[in-house]
Amino acid sequence: VPKVSQAHLDARREQILSGAQRAFARHGYAGATVTRLEEEIGLSRGAIFNYFESKHALFAEVATQIGVRLTGLVSTEGLDAAIREMAAEDPAWLGVLIETESRLRHDADFVRHMEAALERAPRITPWIAERQQEGSLRADVTATQLAQFVSMLLNGLALRIAGGDETDVDSLLRLMHDALAPRE
Amino acid sequence: VPKVSQAHLDARREQILSGAQRAFARHGYAGATVTRLEEEIGLSRGAIFNYFESKHALFAEVATQIGVRLTGLVSTEGLDAAIREMAAEDPAWLGVLIETESRLRHDADFVRHMEAALERAPRITPWIAERQQEGSLRADVTATQLAQFVSMLLNGLALRIAGGDETDVDSLLRLMHDALAPRE
Repeated sequence: VPKVSQAHLDARREQILSGAQRAFARHGYAGATVTRLEEEIGLSRGAIFNYFESKHALFAEVATQIGVRLTGLVSTEGLDAAIREMAAEDPAWLGVLIETESRLRHDADFVRHMEAALERAPRITPWIAERQQEGSLRADVTATQLAQFVSMLLNGLALRIAGGDETDVDSLLRLMHDALAPRE
Repeated sequence: VPKVSQAHLDARREQILSGAQRAFARHGYAGATVTRLEEEIGLSRGAIFNYFESKHALFAEVATQIGVRLTGLVSTEGLDAAIREMAAEDPAWLGVLIETESRLRHDADFVRHMEAALERAPRITPWIAERQQEGSLRADVTATQLAQFVSMLLNGLALRIAGGDETDVDSLLRLMHDALAPRE
């Protein structure tokens, strides 16, 4: 067996995740057959399911990517960047994401894969706690409560984008900042 | 044909809508077969589809009921009451609602029925505009922008409730109020 570099493995993984997201966005979860996944990803089913044990596992991993990316953006560029990124997401993909997560919520196998994938995703609460300590976010409510509020706004925005509704991101950011700002 | 009072027609309609909601919540949209709708509603298919032309039409009407009820609550008891009502909604029903609306978003017949149902639902923006005029809500952003913000919070809350996550409604209300309060 030839030795394969970590960089190569990471690139393959990335290729699979982005191709799978395109396939899910275009065809929905059920419509993204193994053949369509192969076409969109550009790899054989053998290669794909060498990385991910099932379609459930693959979807769970793709579904958590957006959270991973947004949380990463929060920690490097702040909340506004994450909100703007969500507003620019592909509406078709957000629609499939929301629908599939709602539908498979009671599927034990899917839930197990989602929980495993979410466990590896970074959390926003520690970042908020740090901002509270340095005084740039209000500290009269807990970091967990602020994180809940931000996640409700992000999820509400996702539903809105998926629905194709026009959204004024600047006023959303302005109102969010006023909610999160330290109180005099 | 015997004469039927409007009160009787309204009660029947209400019976159909609440039974249909239970059937959708328990079995999902596809799983709520005509037989199951009959069982849960307690009326024959003939009676049910005398009021609603199709399952699409029935679901669209049930789906807009929550918006009608919440908007009504806003105008009689204010925003907090509507948020608390959403937080107390049946998670199973919210899950089916979100999933079905996402999935049928590109079904022209369903969209036509949703648009017709939404047209009859009251709007929250005029209520907000009045509060801005009297000075209890901030007026440095438009009523439409405030309504968008509130609807994103409500939808984010709905997704959270559907997902079965614990939600601190008091801190949500507190942060929302600080976002919406008039600026000094």
